[in-house]
Amino acid sequence: MDATPGQNMRVDPDRLWDSLMEMAKIGPGVAGGNNRQTLTDADAEGRALFQSWCEAAGLTMGLDKMGNMFARREGTEDLPAVYVGSHLDTQPTGGKYDGVLGVLGGLELIRTLNDLNIKTRHPIVVTNWTNEEGTRFAPAMLASGVFAGVHDQAWAEDKTDAEGKRFGDELDRIGWRGDEEVGARRDDMRAFFELHIEQGPILEAEGKDIGVVTHGQGLSWTQVTVTGKESHTGSTPMPMRKNAGLAMARILEKVEEIALAHAPHAVGAAGHIDIYPNSRNVIPGKAVFTVDFRSPDLATIEEMEGEMRIAAQKIVDDMGLTVEFEKTGGFDPVTFDEGCVTAVRNAAERLGYSHQNIISGAGHDACWINRVCPTAMIMTPCVDGLSHNEAEEITKDWARAGADVLLHAVVETAEIVS
Amino acid sequence: MDATPGQNMRVDPDRLWDSLMEMAKIGPGVAGGNNRQTLTDADAEGRALFQSWCEAAGLTMGLDKMGNMFARREGTEDLPAVYVGSHLDTQPTGGKYDGVLGVLGGLELIRTLNDLNIKTRHPIVVTNWTNEEGTRFAPAMLASGVFAGVHDQAWAEDKTDAEGKRFGDELDRIGWRGDEEVGARRDDMRAFFELHIEQGPILEAEGKDIGVVTHGQGLSWTQVTVTGKESHTGSTPMPMRKNAGLAMARILEKVEEIALAHAPHAVGAAGHIDIYPNSRNVIPGKAVFTVDFRSPDLATIEEMEGEMRIAAQKIVDDMGLTVEFEKTGGFDPVTFDEGCVTAVRNAAERLGYSHQNIISGAGHDACWINRVCPTAMIMTPCVDGLSHNEAEEITKDWARAGADVLLHAVVETAEIVS
Repeated sequence: MDATPGQNMRVDPDRLWDSLMEMAKIGPGVAGGNNRQTLTDADAEGRALFQSWCEAAGLTMGLDKMGNMFARREGTEDLPAVYVGSHLDTQPTGGKYDGVLGVLGGLELIRTLNDLNIKTRHPIVVTNWTNEEGTRFAPAMLASGVFAGVHDQAWAEDKTDAEGKRFGDELDRIGWRGDEEVGARRDDMRAFFELHIEQGPILEAEGKDIGVVTHGQGLSWTQVTVTGKESHTGSTPMPMRKNAGLAMARILEKVEEIALAHAPHAVGAAGHIDIYPNSRNVIPGKAVFTVDFRSPDLATIEEMEGEMRIAAQKIVDDMGLTVEFEKTGGFDPVTFDEGCVTAVRNAAERLGYSHQNIISGAGHDACWINRVCPTAMIMTPCVDGLSHNEAEEITKDWARAGADVLLHAVVETAEIVS
Repeated sequence: MDATPGQNMRVDPDRLWDSLMEMAKIGPGVAGGNNRQTLTDADAEGRALFQSWCEAAGLTMGLDKMGNMFARREGTEDLPAVYVGSHLDTQPTGGKYDGVLGVLGGLELIRTLNDLNIKTRHPIVVTNWTNEEGTRFAPAMLASGVFAGVHDQAWAEDKTDAEGKRFGDELDRIGWRGDEEVGARRDDMRAFFELHIEQGPILEAEGKDIGVVTHGQGLSWTQVTVTGKESHTGSTPMPMRKNAGLAMARILEKVEEIALAHAPHAVGAAGHIDIYPNSRNVIPGKAVFTVDFRSPDLATIEEMEGEMRIAAQKIVDDMGLTVEFEKTGGFDPVTFDEGCVTAVRNAAERLGYSHQNIISGAGHDACWINRVCPTAMIMTPCVDGLSHNEAEEITKDWARAGADVLLHAVVETAEIVS
């Protein structure tokens, strides 16, 4: 491979931005963002627009039985393809960039190669994974999970939304179920690169253009149920109270301490808290909350989890209460492919973009696809770390930098024909 | 007055208990208790049963425009009457004794005087106050509040239940609105005695038969709103979080510390807690909770309240969050009438029941009536401090002791004609 002919390649940032804005017109939100949830009419419309752009760029569309879209640009040889992409579906009150930047950044790199009349030995495929968000049909990353063999396809198709509609039926209804067996093309994958906004505040705070994603954090969710005794706030003296809300407060403080003690690559908090009966004049008899610990290192997650359980048990023992723990969710940390990560870092370096290693805090399709082929992610900053929010925002320069790095990493991997 | 003839007076505990059990058949709960909410058909049926018992005991029923019932036994002279009573309405999942013991304990003392052919100089009136519980039409102690001039009658009648039905309309519907102006008989009141279960664990724990209620606690409710920043649990590093849930936890610990520092007659806790968006993978951006401080001493309540605000402000300042306080409820402590309290204590002493001074932690009709005439309360233990619960339980011996003390305190105040 000779990388020299590509040194000056750049995407067209205006064209990329215009496509992002055009896609954002489909399934508009109520506050300037998007509501283009998976398998809705808006999703179908977004898919059709993406397909028309792909066809205009000379790509051939493949479609599998989970509705995953694969737009292929042939290589000069019969070799495994380099995959790029992300997802076009959004949260109910989502932004214009979460997922979409990765799909349309992939399309933009194809358009750029077409403009420059550059050919690659390996084919390049731009992917739109179905139902990454998981808000309509849980869990998230559903179709990439089936593709990677993590989930059973029939199980996934039986998932229902809040109105009881099945995933499989809705996929048929919008007309985007293909004939291709899900995962049939796993052996065709030389690599997968996913460009995505950070959805966190680190890159912006550090003033970096590019995050080179080395790992995906693992997480553990433990639902903690503290049982005390519901009693009258007025007539129960302090020493006779069994206040489950107070025990919860003490456990939350411990969760913070434990996460800080495992710095820097560890986080912990409770986002979900319910107390019972939740009445102003009743001492809480029960508190149910979910402790979320995350780290790119599995042993660290397990340590934090264990320390939390010991600390919580001691807190309730001291107060004469009881506690139960239930593991309600989790996935293992992901280590992305060293070669693909290096390709991303080299691309940022070569292009002169400031960059740093970063760990993905959220789950992404790339976390599943990493199981079936060498994978890496590229992150761009987002304003104020805001995502899953209609106010989600990025700059055109950040979009440009991300797409440029994607272009270079992909072309290096797909090998230019000079 | 010569108290001697009354020294051996005792109520009939079996008759009292039978009446309690008979009343409990009306508006049965789902778990062995009662659902006889105010102004329901069950409330009407309970009132009718009470009225039939009163008539059988030779009493004359008065009824005011708020549905308050006044069953009168004449005295030998034209003097102000001694009032007793409480309420027959219950919580939706209430017990058989909360309120009912005070009304039927009053009826039992009348029956006992009839049995013994004892006459008193002052009339005795057994009262059933409408809507003490306040669960169907808030606030609690509604009709006694109007009677005492705390609330406006038209305002009270306009209160609506969850289905939008007006208090005034429902009172008419069940046929228990009287002609008497509310509060017209205030000047006729020599004293008011309310027998009630403790609704707390103190008397049972101390092994005492009788609580001599010296004060009603005052309370202050402050709704605290902590605002942080909603952000992704996975992608927001610990130092960049503005976790409103954690700030709340720290404030709850302070509330506990502050209440303990004002021991023994001070309590504090939060029974109501809501966090937003309450999602397992989102750092809470907002926490709203109500801090409840109580004490029989107004200055202590104000001190605790002030200390909490200062501590909460410091906590959020240290974390880079903000806090707002809103006073959402409160009433001042009540000091019961020294003469009436002494009459209760003397009665317990004379009868040989173990007793101790106690402060009412909950609100009662007596707290309002104390504003218009000399008032005291008598408390009996309840099992495990449980109340506002279908499992609420007392023993027949406790009911007997309470009614005996009520009998003696009332007869001492109404003055036996020897």
